[in-house]
Amino acid sequence: MSLNILVTNDDGLSAPGIRALVEVAQEFGQVYVVAPDSPQSGQGHAITLEHPLRLKEQRIFGPNIPAYACSGTPVDCVKLAKHVLLKNEDIDLCVSGINHGSNASINIIYSGTMSAAMEASVEGIPSIGFSLLDYSIEADFSAAKIYARKIIKQVLEQGLKETLLLNVNIPKLPADAIKGIKVCHQAEGHWAEDFLENTDPMGRTYYWLTGKFTLAKEDENADVCALENGYVSVVPSMHDLTAYPALNHLKFLEEV
Amino acid sequence: MSLNILVTNDDGLSAPGIRALVEVAQEFGQVYVVAPDSPQSGQGHAITLEHPLRLKEQRIFGPNIPAYACSGTPVDCVKLAKHVLLKNEDIDLCVSGINHGSNASINIIYSGTMSAAMEASVEGIPSIGFSLLDYSIEADFSAAKIYARKIIKQVLEQGLKETLLLNVNIPKLPADAIKGIKVCHQAEGHWAEDFLENTDPMGRTYYWLTGKFTLAKEDENADVCALENGYVSVVPSMHDLTAYPALNHLKFLEEV
Repeated sequence: MSLNILVTNDDGLSAPGIRALVEVAQEFGQVYVVAPDSPQSGQGHAITLEHPLRLKEQRIFGPNIPAYACSGTPVDCVKLAKHVLLKNEDIDLCVSGINHGSNASINIIYSGTMSAAMEASVEGIPSIGFSLLDYSIEADFSAAKIYARKIIKQVLEQGLKETLLLNVNIPKLPADAIKGIKVCHQAEGHWAEDFLENTDPMGRTYYWLTGKFTLAKEDENADVCALENGYVSVVPSMHDLTAYPALNHLKFLEEV
Repeated sequence: MSLNILVTNDDGLSAPGIRALVEVAQEFGQVYVVAPDSPQSGQGHAITLEHPLRLKEQRIFGPNIPAYACSGTPVDCVKLAKHVLLKNEDIDLCVSGINHGSNASINIIYSGTMSAAMEASVEGIPSIGFSLLDYSIEADFSAAKIYARKIIKQVLEQGLKETLLLNVNIPKLPADAIKGIKVCHQAEGHWAEDFLENTDPMGRTYYWLTGKFTLAKEDENADVCALENGYVSVVPSMHDLTAYPALNHLKFLEEV
């Protein structure tokens, strides 16, 4: 029986990265695509509560691949796929991306691509987010496709524990320069934000977010370092944010 | 020396819940408020990349409490507070809320209130998000204030490990009916989404998100159950989403 595979992203239905992922995913089953109708980078886990959502069918990946542009966020796309478009079908796998740009380290929490994958995991759908460390619209996805294929194949064969999602990042290198796959933890780091501050034509101050990613420490088992060393990084991630090691330490709060 | 305390939320600067939290926070130090200029529920960890941001000073909490309405998301508010308004000061604590409505269980990932607290933790600022299980604009925050005061006091006295944030939910009960505080893990659950489907005046179909929260299982150590049993729930949470127990199991991915 054919598998049902949902493909989504945050760069929008027309991004080259999602086309690359559709091409790989269709080797494994029936693909359905629901992706934003405009770029939604940095949308994190936002959902649309205040407005209605629309879906527009656009068979841009061929006659046999139902594809929809959604007016909402990446997380809205997954919700609509699961609860409207495919409400009578099982979704066996959700793949999100291939993102134009890194989602390693703390970027996972800002990323619409990874939040879509996380939403699928909340729904009990095994899910993988893929990102290539190249922001360019003309990025070369050929190596990323090779590794996406390997990882999807393994996940489908071996299974992925429900509630887990994989955060896969691929270095900007030709396939033969990539050293392999490394299973990593999320690097501790943050954006040293820098706001561009300026004045608009009406004389009012405005601030525009920019910034530089800053790693807290070098750690070869962290995703950022694996990528710097030429590996594809895979971070098993989860939507249970509980800091389990802290549960006992905080018992003092129960005494007050 | 006085502590600097940042107060934010996702319901907006004019919400009764943030006023309640400002009243408690000012007992512990110099309060600064940066909150959205309009409700931002469900914004998750969204950041604003495509537009400039604006801040408007509004001393609505009294002459000694600098307060700003921000045109962006809750996470933008924390970034602007840290990197623009208070760039030359230490922020000793960030408190977010008091949210009108629960952020227990999986709601933590959709919540702008909790994402603001998480952003503070990414910046190394101890942070606590508070939510009252009452969506009403006329909600009674008196019991919530009592518990916010107790928890802030303890956290300031005992310290909070950097990278941790606390997700505090308060049941909709009079103070004398609350049984105490329980340190919990995040309940496994999800929204059984239901989209209201309808047709607009132009004859086009639209979908509007609604839904019902569904608990995966009863577990007295999970936040949802503690709340049902009349306790204030405190979940120590973190922005490192790595599923550490899965790291070894997934080593098979390195073999391909």
